[in-house]
Amino acid sequence: MHILITGAAGMIGRKLTDALVARGTIQGTPIDSLTLVDVVPPVMPDGMPGAAMAADLSDPKAAVALIENRPDVIFHLAAIVSGEAEADLHKGYSVNLHGTILLCDAITRQDGYRPRLVFTSSIAVFGAPLPDVIPDDQPTLPLTSYGTQKAMGELLISDLSRRGALDGISLRLPTICIRPGKPNAAASGFYSSILREPLVGQDAVLPVPDTTRHWFASPRAAVGFLIHAAEMDLAPMGQDRALSLPGVDATVADEIAALERVAGPDAAARIRREPDETVAKIVAGWPQAFDPARARDLGFVAEPDMDTIIRVHIEDELDGRIPGTDG
Amino acid sequence: MHILITGAAGMIGRKLTDALVARGTIQGTPIDSLTLVDVVPPVMPDGMPGAAMAADLSDPKAAVALIENRPDVIFHLAAIVSGEAEADLHKGYSVNLHGTILLCDAITRQDGYRPRLVFTSSIAVFGAPLPDVIPDDQPTLPLTSYGTQKAMGELLISDLSRRGALDGISLRLPTICIRPGKPNAAASGFYSSILREPLVGQDAVLPVPDTTRHWFASPRAAVGFLIHAAEMDLAPMGQDRALSLPGVDATVADEIAALERVAGPDAAARIRREPDETVAKIVAGWPQAFDPARARDLGFVAEPDMDTIIRVHIEDELDGRIPGTDG
Repeated sequence: MHILITGAAGMIGRKLTDALVARGTIQGTPIDSLTLVDVVPPVMPDGMPGAAMAADLSDPKAAVALIENRPDVIFHLAAIVSGEAEADLHKGYSVNLHGTILLCDAITRQDGYRPRLVFTSSIAVFGAPLPDVIPDDQPTLPLTSYGTQKAMGELLISDLSRRGALDGISLRLPTICIRPGKPNAAASGFYSSILREPLVGQDAVLPVPDTTRHWFASPRAAVGFLIHAAEMDLAPMGQDRALSLPGVDATVADEIAALERVAGPDAAARIRREPDETVAKIVAGWPQAFDPARARDLGFVAEPDMDTIIRVHIEDELDGRIPGTDG
Repeated sequence: MHILITGAAGMIGRKLTDALVARGTIQGTPIDSLTLVDVVPPVMPDGMPGAAMAADLSDPKAAVALIENRPDVIFHLAAIVSGEAEADLHKGYSVNLHGTILLCDAITRQDGYRPRLVFTSSIAVFGAPLPDVIPDDQPTLPLTSYGTQKAMGELLISDLSRRGALDGISLRLPTICIRPGKPNAAASGFYSSILREPLVGQDAVLPVPDTTRHWFASPRAAVGFLIHAAEMDLAPMGQDRALSLPGVDATVADEIAALERVAGPDAAARIRREPDETVAKIVAGWPQAFDPARARDLGFVAEPDMDTIIRVHIEDELDGRIPGTDG
């Protein structure tokens, strides 16, 4: 099997690459070639045949070149993030909308070719006013350009799947938590940093009230979603190939309580409350929780609770132990 | 005011042009220039300053040239129809999606320019399974490429309106009835022909059961929707700039009963029942009726009943009388 990953240098792209190399197979068949692409050259794992390259997906020639080799499975993760897509109108549309259109267009122009296409959409396709628990038939009414670009991609992929031009699925990933690495400027960054920083003995800032509720899955769960989406039979989905995914429904207070259970009261005491009305206002427009019955029925599984999300981070990022403790 | 109409050579485009010329004003200001564009050169009304030209909207240069003159109001009607968009994948996406994207892109690249954009979407953004009466918060899940392209355009126009790059609205027109002219190959053609042909003493074929229900507005109502959309304050619509419109909810039996009331039993007897399972199956996936509360609150008005729709056709297309009668 030949696999193509766009956005392969990103956090999820790298973890997906590692997971595929560790498995060695997809859809029960050995992976014999991996093509990794991103705006910066991704790192190719040792001993894996294939190619890692830098390319701009908003360039029509880039998609044609990537698709010419007819990868069997395409993970289309490449995107400009929400904040940047809002700040730079044309860059956001160029990569997030045209990048996806060009990739799909290149696929439809190959005769007798119908690859599996796994597209990372986002819960940003939904915007306020929203019910407390979002059902599977919630209309997609985004409040950001990023969410709009993802919702447009979902429609395109459903239509081309219906026509048999590709076999696609769009996954609305929950907010990834605990996101490894350094704190970043994303409005959602605190959801991870109030857990990640205290776990290594550092302070973290909480800009929103403890009652703020949101929808989470670990990086490990996200990779599991992507691989399940690449292997499952998509026909039972029918015309609507976009899916809200399982996650953990947790308030900030739930996050802090879980941190205290897993890492002790000293860790929880590292969180400093510094209310920021701008962040609180952005976050208030976001989805709080989902009832992703369709995805559950299709076999997608997330963590059961926030304690598990924290333990996954300790296992995958901290070599299984909390620094400065025996735990 | 400078007005641009794309798809100006089509049936609605010509009626809209005539209505604008007859009014002479838009938004309370004289219309001093009209630009008409279509794949064939539209006919320019006598004495109206402006230009009529043939252009291919899927050519990036075409949109840039049309927008350079900064029309104040843009009616974007140009589209490949449903059947052709399904038959020719690339042509449909090229005109219906890229044509709309290129027009919007040209607008966003003009500094300090924020035109009113009225986009004709379609009830084809909805596909089965559907409730008998479709509410305003129905998710858009199209079952055709045409419906997909329109739903994607709606999302784009809502987002660019939210950002202040344009002031747009997407109108999901009901099925136009009675469509003037000759019978065509569209699956929906019989809804008009079972009224239009008998009114001029000709036979018509009915391929579906009398119980088949659908959603209608006259060409005159459609032009009224477009002009209202060009003049109203769009701010109260908020983020969601797409609107299902009022119409007449009627079964085929309701159509025939209205025909008999307006034109007598001889006219109704001209309808020959020739069941066609293919047409019946296509039509079964279409919306039946709407509860367009938002549009009604925003002042959009359709005909009250099928009798009025028939009388509008007699007034506008038959010089006010039914041939061979005194009526």
